Amino acid sequence: LHRAVSGDVAFLLHRIFMRSISVLGSDKQIAKWIPLATQFQLIGSYAQTELGHGTYLQGLETTAVFDIATQEFILNTPKISAMKWWPGDMGRSATHTVAFAQLYIHGKCYGVHPFIVQIRSLQDHSLCPGITAGDIGPKMNFEHVDNGYLMLQNVRVPRENMLNKFCEVQPDGTYVRRGSQKINYFTMTTVRISLIADEAVIPLMKACTIAIRYSVVRRQSKLKPGEQEAKILDYQTQQEKLLPPLAAAYAFHFINDYLQELFDKGYREIQKKNFDMLPELHAFSSGFKAVVTQYCTSAVEICLRACGGHGYSLLSGLPSLYTKMLASCIYEGENTILLLQTARFLIKCFMAASAGQPVPPSVTYLAAVKPGKCPAKNKSDFLIPDIYIEAYQHMTVRLISSTAAKLQDLIQSGVKKHDAWNQCTVQLVQAAKAHCHYITVKNFAETVEKLETKAGIQKIMKHLCDLFALHGIFSNTGVFLHDGYISGAQMDMATASYLDLLAIIRKDAVPLVDAFDFTDKSLNSALGSYDGQVYQRLYEWAQKSPTNKQISPAYERYLKPLLHNTLSKL
Amino acid sequence: LHRAVSGDVAFLLHRIFMRSISVLGSDKQIAKWIPLATQFQLIGSYAQTELGHGTYLQGLETTAVFDIATQEFILNTPKISAMKWWPGDMGRSATHTVAFAQLYIHGKCYGVHPFIVQIRSLQDHSLCPGITAGDIGPKMNFEHVDNGYLMLQNVRVPRENMLNKFCEVQPDGTYVRRGSQKINYFTMTTVRISLIADEAVIPLMKACTIAIRYSVVRRQSKLKPGEQEAKILDYQTQQEKLLPPLAAAYAFHFINDYLQELFDKGYREIQKKNFDMLPELHAFSSGFKAVVTQYCTSAVEICLRACGGHGYSLLSGLPSLYTKMLASCIYEGENTILLLQTARFLIKCFMAASAGQPVPPSVTYLAAVKPGKCPAKNKSDFLIPDIYIEAYQHMTVRLISSTAAKLQDLIQSGVKKHDAWNQCTVQLVQAAKAHCHYITVKNFAETVEKLETKAGIQKIMKHLCDLFALHGIFSNTGVFLHDGYISGAQMDMATASYLDLLAIIRKDAVPLVDAFDFTDKSLNSALGSYDGQVYQRLYEWAQKSPTNKQISPAYERYLKPLLHNTLSKL
Repeated sequence: LHRAVSGDVAFLLHRIFMRSISVLGSDKQIAKWIPLATQFQLIGSYAQTELGHGTYLQGLETTAVFDIATQEFILNTPKISAMKWWPGDMGRSATHTVAFAQLYIHGKCYGVHPFIVQIRSLQDHSLCPGITAGDIGPKMNFEHVDNGYLMLQNVRVPRENMLNKFCEVQPDGTYVRRGSQKINYFTMTTVRISLIADEAVIPLMKACTIAIRYSVVRRQSKLKPGEQEAKILDYQTQQEKLLPPLAAAYAFHFINDYLQELFDKGYREIQKKNFDMLPELHAFSSGFKAVVTQYCTSAVEICLRACGGHGYSLLSGLPSLYTKMLASCIYEGENTILLLQTARFLIKCFMAASAGQPVPPSVTYLAAVKPGKCPAKNKSDFLIPDIYIEAYQHMTVRLISSTAAKLQDLIQSGVKKHDAWNQCTVQLVQAAKAHCHYITVKNFAETVEKLETKAGIQKIMKHLCDLFALHGIFSNTGVFLHDGYISGAQMDMATASYLDLLAIIRKDAVPLVDAFDFTDKSLNSALGSYDGQVYQRLYEWAQKSPTNKQISPAYERYLKPLLHNTLSKL
Repeated sequence: LHRAVSGDVAFLLHRIFMRSISVLGSDKQIAKWIPLATQFQLIGSYAQTELGHGTYLQGLETTAVFDIATQEFILNTPKISAMKWWPGDMGRSATHTVAFAQLYIHGKCYGVHPFIVQIRSLQDHSLCPGITAGDIGPKMNFEHVDNGYLMLQNVRVPRENMLNKFCEVQPDGTYVRRGSQKINYFTMTTVRISLIADEAVIPLMKACTIAIRYSVVRRQSKLKPGEQEAKILDYQTQQEKLLPPLAAAYAFHFINDYLQELFDKGYREIQKKNFDMLPELHAFSSGFKAVVTQYCTSAVEICLRACGGHGYSLLSGLPSLYTKMLASCIYEGENTILLLQTARFLIKCFMAASAGQPVPPSVTYLAAVKPGKCPAKNKSDFLIPDIYIEAYQHMTVRLISSTAAKLQDLIQSGVKKHDAWNQCTVQLVQAAKAHCHYITVKNFAETVEKLETKAGIQKIMKHLCDLFALHGIFSNTGVFLHDGYISGAQMDMATASYLDLLAIIRKDAVPLVDAFDFTDKSLNSALGSYDGQVYQRLYEWAQKSPTNKQISPAYERYLKPLLHNTLSKL
């Protein structure tokens, strides 16, 4: 199927359709639907987001009213803002979908539930009665995915089509709930963790590869008078653009391993019916999804701009990496909202830790509030992992504790809880980011330590770890200087070490990108294959591009005759 | 012509073609070519950038060899990296171009000079002998502009086709130079200043309008329990995303006025044959072009993301604003290189000022290095313009002086001048940005003061000015905290004032975007017309989009039969 159509059409939502049935459906429902889906006897989609409702699921407006007489649910889109909007493969492909709707029984609302709804005929693929569906139009990327809209008008589905592992409507209209609602988090946790590698880290690796390979081929201006024009990667400013993203690609690759491990551990516990790790998993997957997608998106933009005009050409491969990755900051939970969920967890843990209560192992550091000062005495001290890890920890605890204090002060001064929370959200987001940054630095340093048997690799990985940590300090000096933990003089040392590292890592930059292990080694980039033939390739690709094969209709119709008529009068 | 073809085809390069002839051509050349161009009897382009050479003009490889026997220049593209690449309207439209090439007379190179070259027939629009040209392929935007490539093979142009206001090749091959070469800066200065408003500030105003109008229509989640879902602009995090860009749009609108005034003054001097202001004009136009395009590009991305999924839809108008503005960070001088030119000017002025020599009025502040501390005692002190202007000035002088000191230290320790410069470039860029930021804040405050007759406007403009200044401090706390000029406790006050302002300005956010005076009031955005019908409009626009009118060939050919065959077997 991947080969049959160019681009990204791959029925990605079909998998989500199957996953939601597997997780939320009863054994009977799984037995009925999964084989059909596996054999592609239907094409599934997942209809959650509405035109007027995204992350806040409780606000969904689609209704599903139980009709005892016929033992059916009647689904409706009561107004335009309730129209399903964005579901992938919905525009023209899907035959079925899992639609989320507010369940009503005897006029009482029981909240949002998932229903399997057929939307297109299995005979001729036409829309079923009561269904309005189509494509939502052009987007910044994903042009090959038919993201669609869906309106339901008195669409009836049998009682058995409500996914009922965790709750059920019995024939007489009795509503029965089973098990923890929180398990729903776990599905999202899975999705968020899996997208960190696929949708953020791998594209960043590709962008670094393209930009760094180009920067050792491209020459511009003279670094030393009388010499040949210099490779642009020899300029400090270019190193400062490209080498921190390179270090970050490794840092996030390792944090992905860390999250996978945490996730596997959590999953084993859940199988033993122990749900204690769910809040931690939810907080970590949310925070890291936000921090990693945000960082990678910015870094890909930096890579694009670092290639100048050629980066702006689609032939570089960078624009499409960027426009696709940008979406990852929005989908599967908008980043700001996710960071606030992480912050809520951190504040809760901080309060617990302050009160001497136990907290999950990953956040025990919150109990260790020490005033102190950074002990660094010269610039090489900032290459000692303990020194910078301690600095990150101190800074993170300070941000979390000061925001917790502000929150409490506001509440004690009479501000209502929800208003107080809102007034702290800018700082809460900052605190959540700091936490993720700290964990990433710590995990990178620990990973490097474990590499001790491979000395050559360990050495360069240590440089990258130092660079990642010091780049974070250099880019956020204020949070380290704020309470004097790091002094101005020490910050100058950290900066000097940071800038020194750029020149050191520059030497290994090409091997480091060549070592990236992304599955699809073909970069689809005229700048990315490092063989020195970049200009030849750009020229050949441009000649082959559609713009040179066909003249746009507007040009043919209006402009060419106009030019010809004007010019021939000369 | 704008109407004849959809999109952006407007022969923009034709104007640059004319401008370069007007500025660089002799009276005789102007008399010959400008009337032809004005009557569109030819279509001009501007061929400077090469596949392997951008900002560093001296590196251009195209050659123009003077042939005394025929009194012609013979133009050649000696290798693939010398191919002209990017010239607008070159791909299929232009008949003539101003091509930049290394001039050779009797085997001696005289550097880069501009030549008028005909590339297409005026009879049938076919390519002239020796010319290879076409479109460079797809780009991130500008899809309607036929950016092209151009190769020259023994193309001969008469001696009169070298633009010769400032230098000439006489019939016997004698090379004569007239006047200052620096005047070439002035053309670029004009272009850079004019693009600040057109290509950066106006698109930012549009993006703010779209995102802010949407944020008072869109509701998401509950701010207070039991109430209706809240308008998303009532969330502090959303305010923190959108209101600083709104303030910046005004700040840059005013700095544009400032630059225009500086430019007009400079132009009057130049007409009096006084070129003294050229370095200052060059430094300011370079630095502000870089700072403004960079800020606006980031801000448009923030606006896009602040609209969630709907921002990612092309129907919002935001993706195309972003992908177009991104190019402005690269064209007409890559931003990092421009900032380094500003930095070079600032370092020179700082050294002069330190030695008691006179400097241009806009940088006299560099002479006033005072240690001191910020006198603010409570959060409202940070709403006093003198307090924050002083802080910006102190910070800027510190960054420039410390980088100048590092530069001198390196040189005194034996590092070669060019190496020392390269080792300081990351900090030099930072210093140049700080200078532009300081001037922008100062100019904003001075503009607000002049509004005193219009009390209502002055009040809200004062809020915006404060917000712009405090947002700059909040986003760059480190540079203010570094030497203790602002203490940690004072930074908390500044932050509190900053966050307070968000809630204050939120009330006036809609009138403030409605007041924007961009010429094209039609936003081409389904989210931008503030009538509460945003969802209706999105639905209508989506239905009309090409994706709903035509099914892609790949879908029709492969996927639909596949679906039908599979599904009908059910």
